[in-house]
Amino acid sequence: MTTTATSTVTTAAPSTSPSAVTAGEVVAPYLHARAADFLRGLRLHTESGADTTGSEAAARTLRAAARRISGTLHTFRPLLDPVWADQLRTELAWLSGTLALEHACTSRLVRLVDALSRLSSGGAQGPVPAARGTETSRGLTVGAARAGALLERQLTLARTRAHSAALQALGSSRFHAVADSVALLASDVPLGPAAAARAVDVLDAPAAAVERRLRDAVAALPLTRAAHPYNADALALTAGESQDTPWHQTRGLLRLHRYAGEVLYGGADPDPVLYEAARALDRHRDAAEAAAAAAAAARTPRIAPATAYALGVLHADQRHDVEAARFAFQRAWSRTTAPVP
Amino acid sequence: MTTTATSTVTTAAPSTSPSAVTAGEVVAPYLHARAADFLRGLRLHTESGADTTGSEAAARTLRAAARRISGTLHTFRPLLDPVWADQLRTELAWLSGTLALEHACTSRLVRLVDALSRLSSGGAQGPVPAARGTETSRGLTVGAARAGALLERQLTLARTRAHSAALQALGSSRFHAVADSVALLASDVPLGPAAAARAVDVLDAPAAAVERRLRDAVAALPLTRAAHPYNADALALTAGESQDTPWHQTRGLLRLHRYAGEVLYGGADPDPVLYEAARALDRHRDAAEAAAAAAAAARTPRIAPATAYALGVLHADQRHDVEAARFAFQRAWSRTTAPVP
Repeated sequence: MTTTATSTVTTAAPSTSPSAVTAGEVVAPYLHARAADFLRGLRLHTESGADTTGSEAAARTLRAAARRISGTLHTFRPLLDPVWADQLRTELAWLSGTLALEHACTSRLVRLVDALSRLSSGGAQGPVPAARGTETSRGLTVGAARAGALLERQLTLARTRAHSAALQALGSSRFHAVADSVALLASDVPLGPAAAARAVDVLDAPAAAVERRLRDAVAALPLTRAAHPYNADALALTAGESQDTPWHQTRGLLRLHRYAGEVLYGGADPDPVLYEAARALDRHRDAAEAAAAAAAAARTPRIAPATAYALGVLHADQRHDVEAARFAFQRAWSRTTAPVP
Repeated sequence: MTTTATSTVTTAAPSTSPSAVTAGEVVAPYLHARAADFLRGLRLHTESGADTTGSEAAARTLRAAARRISGTLHTFRPLLDPVWADQLRTELAWLSGTLALEHACTSRLVRLVDALSRLSSGGAQGPVPAARGTETSRGLTVGAARAGALLERQLTLARTRAHSAALQALGSSRFHAVADSVALLASDVPLGPAAAARAVDVLDAPAAAVERRLRDAVAALPLTRAAHPYNADALALTAGESQDTPWHQTRGLLRLHRYAGEVLYGGADPDPVLYEAARALDRHRDAAEAAAAAAAAARTPRIAPATAYALGVLHADQRHDVEAARFAFQRAWSRTTAPVP
């Protein structure tokens, strides 16, 4: 987690004398490359047609590129044309949000159905012979099957809607304007006057500002508690959403920090510990949203008590996984190097 | 966890030459003392009358003494009159079981109501202001209140029945026969011929046999998995009861092992690590039974979906605590000394 600009800039542009490299010469190639990724994703999307796997891969490429462009525009805004940067960020946020929804519905359904199957299975010791099934297990098996069907219905409907919305978005003139902006970005970045300064002089500050915000956010998290396994902290269900927010914010900041690292270090060799921390926060978010989906399904009118019961089990199970993700994040984070002063 | 008979016997009877002490001279004083405890508990019970705290303390004393006498009769059976020992053990098991039930209902209710209150509270960060309450929290709060009322009704009824059964047992001629046997035990232990042998020659084997059974039972537990926090093993709900059995059996063996240690070491300075391991297995048992009670309550006919939902949350929460208890046991156990060869 070092951010010394000298080594950075040397890596990014090894052919030029380090002191002569401008900030623009570091940021622009990164944005060019991500814009090219975006256009490739767009091409994939057009070519995939009705092929689900292909269109999922295309959407993934588009989202990854959009997130990185947006993060770079945010972190290195002082070096760019700010009006252009803010505008493009808004449009990319709209696009990412629209494209992310379908994927989120799919992965949430997979997560919840997997959890239900694990909860109503015989566990790690293998399936329980039918003869040993107890009243508890029979009740839960029926409830779990119904809960699974209910979640499948609700999340498939949501996914279909999200899919239509994504298709509509990708066909809209608003999207074509974004695509045009990104196509332009693939060859030409609207830099501000500061981008002409030497990279060693101006690149560090924006990256360090993001890192500072990240460290402040992490410092405010209840990590001491998270370090104790089975603290049952995330199981205070009614506080769930409000207690999750600082973790979600940290997730966003960690992402910005990682992308800033990609700009500075040319994207090579991502820090494995930061990646692990980021994965833990992704898991945290996924589990929190899956828990909320289980809770939402339980509010469906006229469901059977057995269904509601299985959804309650599922809700607590996913909040348990929220707690596990916090533990995993704490473990990964404690392995990052000492804070930059 | 050393069981060298020499030091043992020296501690138990420091005034006699170690080699001259018979096995009976070690086991009998322990049984005398526990029988005296039992009689004290009985006196406390008679004196407590309608005083709940007093009668709870009396039942606790009676149960603790009965467990220790019974465990000693089991472990050191080769040194005792076996017919008498088996008969008294059967009667003490009946008595302990009858007396334990009321306590179990009380502590189960306390555990479940505490868990519900934690689950529907704002968590460690303090109460959530009402204005921030979400749909999830409102639904859960209503369901938790109803589930709490249902559990209170069911477990209070069970406790009342257990209380009547305990009172009836304590007034029965069967109980008076047990009390007479224990009163006799306070001064006179029906020893077998082997009790006349030197303690150093015959006390070790029965204690070592119990320890071996304990170690075998622990070796068969999935401790490697339990050592990984958040392994979600105990959450395979339908396998719950069957997967718990080996842990419950280990709990019983650990108890026998600890009581054998009390006999050998005169009850002084119980091994803190073994005590901690035993506490973890108590918590395991309590959580498993509380989970089963929540599941049983959810099978009550005509409950509202919100109630069933909260009971599902509670069930998973208690199974989560089962998993936490396994983790705690694994931690404590790993700190016991290397196995005796």
